[in-house]
Amino acid sequence: MWSEPELVEQLRRKALVPPSAGIVLGIGDDCAIVRPRGAAEDWLYTTDMMLEGTHFLRTTHTAADAGWKALARGLSDIAAMGGEPRFCLLSLALGPWVDQRWVDGFYRGLLSLANATATALIGGDLAHTDRVLCDIVVAGVVPRGEALRRDRARAGDAIYVSGRLGGSALGLETARGQAWTRHKRPSPRLALGGFLRAAGVRAAMDLSDGLSLDLHRLAAASGLCAEITAPPRFPGATLDHSLHGGEDYELLFTAPPRTPLPAHFEGLPLTRIGTMRRGLAGAVRLDGAPLEPLGYDHLKSL
Amino acid sequence: MWSEPELVEQLRRKALVPPSAGIVLGIGDDCAIVRPRGAAEDWLYTTDMMLEGTHFLRTTHTAADAGWKALARGLSDIAAMGGEPRFCLLSLALGPWVDQRWVDGFYRGLLSLANATATALIGGDLAHTDRVLCDIVVAGVVPRGEALRRDRARAGDAIYVSGRLGGSALGLETARGQAWTRHKRPSPRLALGGFLRAAGVRAAMDLSDGLSLDLHRLAAASGLCAEITAPPRFPGATLDHSLHGGEDYELLFTAPPRTPLPAHFEGLPLTRIGTMRRGLAGAVRLDGAPLEPLGYDHLKSL
Repeated sequence: MWSEPELVEQLRRKALVPPSAGIVLGIGDDCAIVRPRGAAEDWLYTTDMMLEGTHFLRTTHTAADAGWKALARGLSDIAAMGGEPRFCLLSLALGPWVDQRWVDGFYRGLLSLANATATALIGGDLAHTDRVLCDIVVAGVVPRGEALRRDRARAGDAIYVSGRLGGSALGLETARGQAWTRHKRPSPRLALGGFLRAAGVRAAMDLSDGLSLDLHRLAAASGLCAEITAPPRFPGATLDHSLHGGEDYELLFTAPPRTPLPAHFEGLPLTRIGTMRRGLAGAVRLDGAPLEPLGYDHLKSL
Repeated sequence: MWSEPELVEQLRRKALVPPSAGIVLGIGDDCAIVRPRGAAEDWLYTTDMMLEGTHFLRTTHTAADAGWKALARGLSDIAAMGGEPRFCLLSLALGPWVDQRWVDGFYRGLLSLANATATALIGGDLAHTDRVLCDIVVAGVVPRGEALRRDRARAGDAIYVSGRLGGSALGLETARGQAWTRHKRPSPRLALGGFLRAAGVRAAMDLSDGLSLDLHRLAAASGLCAEITAPPRFPGATLDHSLHGGEDYELLFTAPPRTPLPAHFEGLPLTRIGTMRRGLAGAVRLDGAPLEPLGYDHLKSL
């Protein structure tokens, strides 16, 4: 069976894009980019599935946690491209154990984040299945031609991450404290994404599957390799958590080396961790040694 | 547990729509309608889930049938509003029995319809679950302010259906002949939808859950009741198939009584079956007797 990148590459080759469709960027980045005829802005679209047992558990996550997280994952993709969210559509397949209280709670969690980020819920679909599965589509806007893309890094760019990494993986292990809250209620970095776009950042993506895998993807998309040192860690997180742990939903980005970036943005540290270099596309080195992309590949087990 | 209409109504009340978002129509019709700032056209968005065991069976549907149908269901919603498709995003959760050949076939079926309708596949997501589930989002365009909506029928409007109804339900029972092909490979009525919009049709929706339920919904949305006679039947279909059978994906529409409409459009009969009247909103009468909405409510069994 294909791994996810191979399947994505196959689809990218087979999916014809009619020239009239206004598609600026199709399959392969955090969001697709579409330029509606006559519109002042480019539109971003992303879709994310969330599964009971994989992304949340009924025993540890409240219904409101699950609803929050479903939307946060999609909003994080909009943030990664420097966009502002506009609306979402939610498809929800209910498991046999779900009752009305759970459904109420799920939508309460989702709508609390939707309302806080001015994201309108404009549609969706409902069905039954064996365990809860939801799929969210989020649409956002960005000034024409200014979306941050993972294929835009250049050799010599400085590599940065926001925040401290590994908190979500630590929380998943310990189910306690700040790290657990972080795992259950990730904060999409929308304000930061918009700030970075305006500040001259060139390439960005969100850290959903772990730094090692996500940086490998950014480097591969840009045709470059990456040299880094250890990233800042969430209190209590191990080096492994910070390198390979998923679902931090911080931003990974690159900028020309002299771009003036503040050390903090709204209390969140922005830390330079390395440099993009010419070399084997997609290779990542940590303190000079090869770093394997061990993060989460959704189809790896096939 | 809520029935689907109650849940939709709850969500419609709770989902704040920020005034800046350009949302013309949110939850409750075949598609949501969005007006991008500066754009020449309105954009339509719809999302549809398709589940193994509910909407297709691995034993009777080829992978290509399943891929075709996933997209056809979304395109039918675009057709129902008189729109032209532009792009789609597909989330696909794979069951444990799925192999690479099946995935290849699924995308082959989906892309054959996508290419035939100039619908670009621009993104998606992949996951594993217990049985195959996919969720498709289709976006399309329609001239500004001209989308056909189910809440736009007026008292005195003539009620029409396209094609002959009950074929899909018959095919599901017999698994043979033209009816079976129709069930497996529904044809979204895109050209017809555009024609009806230009011809002065006021209200429309697609027949996905059966005439009795879908006409009830159209009448309820328009605050009217409907009086009809039996619709034209697919060869071999019973009256029940034609009244309550789902997944025909024909169009149901209303027009002012003197609107000149042809008897056929591209070989498809357009048949007047009744009249919209003032009265109990949502009530449907067949030859003078109440017709219960027996079609498929996705959450009725909860």
